Amino acid sequence: MTAHLSPPPDGVPASHRPTRDGDATSADGTGDIGVGPHLKDGERAARPPLAAGEDERLARVALMRAAEPGDALMGRLVALSGPVEALAQIRRGLLASEVRGDRREGWERFGRHLEGRLAGWRARLHAADPVRDLAAGERLGARLIVPGEIEWPTQLDDLHESRPLALWIEGSANLRFSCLRSLSIVGARAATAYGTHVAASFGAELSDAEWTVVSGGAYGIDGAAHRGALAGRSPTIVVLACGTDFCYPSGHQDLFAAVRDQGVVISECPPGTHPTRSRFLVRNRLIAALSRGTLVVEAALRSGAINTANHALALHRHLGAVPGPITSEASQGCHHLLRQGKAQCVSSGEEAIDLVGAIGDDLAREVRGPVVPRDSLSSEARRVLDAIPTRGAGPATIAVAAQVTLDTALSCLGNLAAAGYIRRTRQGWRVSPDGYSST
Amino acid sequence: MTAHLSPPPDGVPASHRPTRDGDATSADGTGDIGVGPHLKDGERAARPPLAAGEDERLARVALMRAAEPGDALMGRLVALSGPVEALAQIRRGLLASEVRGDRREGWERFGRHLEGRLAGWRARLHAADPVRDLAAGERLGARLIVPGEIEWPTQLDDLHESRPLALWIEGSANLRFSCLRSLSIVGARAATAYGTHVAASFGAELSDAEWTVVSGGAYGIDGAAHRGALAGRSPTIVVLACGTDFCYPSGHQDLFAAVRDQGVVISECPPGTHPTRSRFLVRNRLIAALSRGTLVVEAALRSGAINTANHALALHRHLGAVPGPITSEASQGCHHLLRQGKAQCVSSGEEAIDLVGAIGDDLAREVRGPVVPRDSLSSEARRVLDAIPTRGAGPATIAVAAQVTLDTALSCLGNLAAAGYIRRTRQGWRVSPDGYSST
Repeated sequence: MTAHLSPPPDGVPASHRPTRDGDATSADGTGDIGVGPHLKDGERAARPPLAAGEDERLARVALMRAAEPGDALMGRLVALSGPVEALAQIRRGLLASEVRGDRREGWERFGRHLEGRLAGWRARLHAADPVRDLAAGERLGARLIVPGEIEWPTQLDDLHESRPLALWIEGSANLRFSCLRSLSIVGARAATAYGTHVAASFGAELSDAEWTVVSGGAYGIDGAAHRGALAGRSPTIVVLACGTDFCYPSGHQDLFAAVRDQGVVISECPPGTHPTRSRFLVRNRLIAALSRGTLVVEAALRSGAINTANHALALHRHLGAVPGPITSEASQGCHHLLRQGKAQCVSSGEEAIDLVGAIGDDLAREVRGPVVPRDSLSSEARRVLDAIPTRGAGPATIAVAAQVTLDTALSCLGNLAAAGYIRRTRQGWRVSPDGYSST
Repeated sequence: MTAHLSPPPDGVPASHRPTRDGDATSADGTGDIGVGPHLKDGERAARPPLAAGEDERLARVALMRAAEPGDALMGRLVALSGPVEALAQIRRGLLASEVRGDRREGWERFGRHLEGRLAGWRARLHAADPVRDLAAGERLGARLIVPGEIEWPTQLDDLHESRPLALWIEGSANLRFSCLRSLSIVGARAATAYGTHVAASFGAELSDAEWTVVSGGAYGIDGAAHRGALAGRSPTIVVLACGTDFCYPSGHQDLFAAVRDQGVVISECPPGTHPTRSRFLVRNRLIAALSRGTLVVEAALRSGAINTANHALALHRHLGAVPGPITSEASQGCHHLLRQGKAQCVSSGEEAIDLVGAIGDDLAREVRGPVVPRDSLSSEARRVLDAIPTRGAGPATIAVAAQVTLDTALSCLGNLAAAGYIRRTRQGWRVSPDGYSST
């Protein structure tokens, strides 16, 4: 039942193979679908033909200019045709029939907007110059990684069609390795002193335990989590909603510089891209997807952090929420997640690690109350101790209340007094001030 | 397959019917198992024979002196033989064969201690004087209720063998009615200002909504909850671990007086009983059993409130926990309950009512974030608004970023400016300071 696949026509260079899409081929008549040669017609002869890998990198950089981050229609097109062919189809203004004819779930939804989106992409492509973008990135000290490359974090594949086309990275750490043991810490920009304190402590504790903190680099919780992580020796990852050359918020210039030294600053936006509200929202899916789980420290009911939390749930990542005073609006979103049963209650750095840690490996210690001296008493002595009324009583009364014999009571009372639990007063035996807990 | 039950011998008064326990009958040879006549042999002739109901009340009052509250062995004995017969067996020092021969689960556990316990009860019975106890209660303004009476809260039957033998009540409210819509609020004595604020608010909100607050009358959370409840018009119930004539803690004299006016102060301890640690712990089961659910406001990991919470779970009552700062030890117990999935997260009085309210009746409103003006924008206008970079841009850039035509962008920009969302600056269109939320 094996399908016989026809081998590719021998001797024809990959970039010149005819596509399966007859319409598209007849549309421009050349069958040339390479991207490099298309970039600037004048440069065609001047530059050597690009390797297939470079072709794909350039195509992805061009497509990053054509579509907004997280454009699922673009993602599906690239998944169906590959980036090089997708770019060629957009340039021609005509999608391959395999794309138009695709009947997978959700495609119809896109289909209605197909023509408009195609026109939008084409319009933006006019201003795109991937060679310049790559050069600009290099000049800025940024590197581009694309799916399949060694530094690509494969967990981003869980995003399916909204997987980034590529990522720009600045910094010393290896993104993929850093993400293997990582937790996202997100929360309000308008955080309280409590929230930033907690975020910084968790960041530091995770970093000390060789966990990477992923966050959005914003003021408030994000910044505190990064700063805490920098106090340890593990990398931390800032995921921006603008180009990596663009410092937003501007007050975090020094923070981002420190992150580049110890971790990475990454973005799916081309250099020079400004942040917009919608870019923040799509950026949040990356924060959720890169790590094993997301922890919300402080968040209003409608907030970016809750948006990230919902992405984490949709991606089947772990979700934790840190409780806070119910009188604080900044904790309302966390309490709502707890109440809905969507998030695990996380009240210490150890529990945060437990949230994302390997089963049986990074378990938080079972939380226990303090062991008090009375735990070590014999059950008889404890019964006698527990039976002593607050206002004091004689041995006979205590023996009856404890339901032991008078002899037993007397012997226990002597031992308890010697150990300092009780003392003899004019009202009879009484529990010492620090030996009694009424509840 | 119906078993043929032999009818009781006609003409023999109930209190003189032979028991099925031949040993016991032969032990004292009289077959007299009434309790009243046994109280004080000297009084036997002086007082008229008591009615069967009074017999039972007196027997229960005597047994309350014989056993500590919550004594499950006593509970099983009373369940098997009835209080009058149980008292007679204890006085005789010999349990009926149906008791000794009972093979129900857990009985063996008791069986081993049976002789010792029986001796303990007998010893304590020597000092018991139920007639005096009833008179003392009456003098104090307390009333005694026993199972089956109109004011008896039937939900206490869920306690099975540790059901109280009877309850002493002081106060104006009807205990059974008050418990129908009730929530227990418990927590630390060493509460924080945050905890007492929350407990008092919840108490008041519940009372306003015609819910009864049940608690233990202690300092801290308990007291705050009662005080809050007194601010409304609903009753509140103090469940003491000592006699109702005994004010513990002594600083709550005025509080308890106010509770007697508007609710009830109750106890399963005879008048004059002092509080002991073990009595506090068994008292907690009553707090859990009386109400529809228990809410823990602040509690250390090892605390009476957690003990009450565990009783509530064992009784299949609802359990809620109020979160607090994770930096506060006083909230550790609450967070532990949340983390274990034992308690529902409760962050408002409304949610507390939702916890115990009837399904579909007392539901808390779905918590939502504020509706912001941008919610009412058309999807196109929202896209244009969301595409405006923080640093401003011209209409063409915005149109491309929003993926709409220039005409659409211009029309949306005009409307957004008229509505105050955006303004034109030298850097192009920018979002107004209060019209922008980056996340």
